[in-house]
Amino acid sequence: MQWLDARDSDTLMIRHRVVNSVHKERSAYQEIEVIDTVDFGRMLLLDGIIQTSVRDEFIYHEMLAHVPLFVHPNPKRVLIIGGGDGGTLRETLKHPSVEEVHLVEIDERVIDASRKYLPELSGGFDDPRAKVVIRDGIEYVAEVKGAYDVILIDAPDPEGAAVGLFSTDFYANARDALGDDGVLAAQTESPFIDPKLVKEIYDRIWAQFPLCRLYTAHVPSYSVGIWSFALALKRPEMFERYRRAGGEFKTRYYNSEIHAAAFALPEYILELLGDKARA
Amino acid sequence: MQWLDARDSDTLMIRHRVVNSVHKERSAYQEIEVIDTVDFGRMLLLDGIIQTSVRDEFIYHEMLAHVPLFVHPNPKRVLIIGGGDGGTLRETLKHPSVEEVHLVEIDERVIDASRKYLPELSGGFDDPRAKVVIRDGIEYVAEVKGAYDVILIDAPDPEGAAVGLFSTDFYANARDALGDDGVLAAQTESPFIDPKLVKEIYDRIWAQFPLCRLYTAHVPSYSVGIWSFALALKRPEMFERYRRAGGEFKTRYYNSEIHAAAFALPEYILELLGDKARA
Repeated sequence: MQWLDARDSDTLMIRHRVVNSVHKERSAYQEIEVIDTVDFGRMLLLDGIIQTSVRDEFIYHEMLAHVPLFVHPNPKRVLIIGGGDGGTLRETLKHPSVEEVHLVEIDERVIDASRKYLPELSGGFDDPRAKVVIRDGIEYVAEVKGAYDVILIDAPDPEGAAVGLFSTDFYANARDALGDDGVLAAQTESPFIDPKLVKEIYDRIWAQFPLCRLYTAHVPSYSVGIWSFALALKRPEMFERYRRAGGEFKTRYYNSEIHAAAFALPEYILELLGDKARA
Repeated sequence: MQWLDARDSDTLMIRHRVVNSVHKERSAYQEIEVIDTVDFGRMLLLDGIIQTSVRDEFIYHEMLAHVPLFVHPNPKRVLIIGGGDGGTLRETLKHPSVEEVHLVEIDERVIDASRKYLPELSGGFDDPRAKVVIRDGIEYVAEVKGAYDVILIDAPDPEGAAVGLFSTDFYANARDALGDDGVLAAQTESPFIDPKLVKEIYDRIWAQFPLCRLYTAHVPSYSVGIWSFALALKRPEMFERYRRAGGEFKTRYYNSEIHAAAFALPEYILELLGDKARA
């Protein structure tokens, strides 16, 4: 492979020059590939889709983890659905209040590949607070009640088996897996490239929670368009009371100003989401 | 041309599928091209570089124009350097206080092409408040003193003749072309792709003004990385006192929350810019 074409559509893509292929295998679930690129360094691909790159992974992982973790006043028990590369786990473990993180990943081979080839991301798997569960996240959340302070949904694009990670039932079960102060965050695709999809996901999450807010960051390896996340709360009043980051640990993207700013949405996204986004 | 490769480097680019070539000419300064693409619609290229697309031009033009125009308490006289496509002019003319806009463009053929092929952008050229000056913007600002409330520097990438639009002398002259309440905004490239360049430009502008702040937006047709702008003020206290947009006119990206949020910078950009960006 000389070029990797990261597609937003058949007629729009980001081309990355590939230096070499590091690893390639077919697991029970998907094709797992690790490649080195000139501009984004090492990348993990699943079925040919970029999951993460060492160059820009900090943006996605910090924004998925720290926004909800600073909204919760005292997060102790955290559930990560997916996230087999370990990046979201690494960021979650930076929070001193966190006592236990359960990472539920369907494909053990993704974790193995990340531990072997992406040490920058996967160090958290060795932390005694981290517990890996190899299982379908959809089934897992259906069985757990009131157990977590924060749930982070680190899903791939909603295709194939991952469609269920964007379903109404899944979000309802995730809500019930949270405690009374529970906070959920999920990656919710690009509002510039897939506005209809983002609106559908947003409406589904809103329907299960008293408050849901979209926030954005730009993740260059995912899309030419801006990326979105949803933050959903069982107690709406917690939204404004996020704790300010006070230098407890180092970040490369997140800070308290970015936390607030990420919820300021451009007019075209506000129009897409409708009245609930302005309420 | 079947594909347009919008390069961030020789090894990283955004590929746009081209539908057809609408116009192509060589002016005294550059090659001017208008093409239609599948995902971004019509585009204007200068020497092969995307200047604007009808799909996402609102992001760049609204952020370049409205941030400084809402910071100035009563902008009447505005200077645009470059901006031959008319997008920045169109946004500027939305402000009811604006009495006169001088647009100084070196290449008349760019304006002609935009008037003919990009009516969505170029309607402002017919407004009686708009006055076009066909001249080198570098020379123009060197001769004008204290004449403008707001200057918008709508420059192409700093290559060839455009290098002078990013020079210390040019910024000093632009400052002197402003009145005592003057506000300047300039496009300042991508801090993700060209951090060294952004830092250099930022330091040069800072050196000429009592306050300079970087702000960001994501412009998909320009770069896989986030885009930056600089806002420079002769009176620093005006920075916090921007007027809130109150529905005087319609925007698709800008609103008052986005105005404030655009100045929240990720940690990696704060580190790049140094202490002055946190002051």
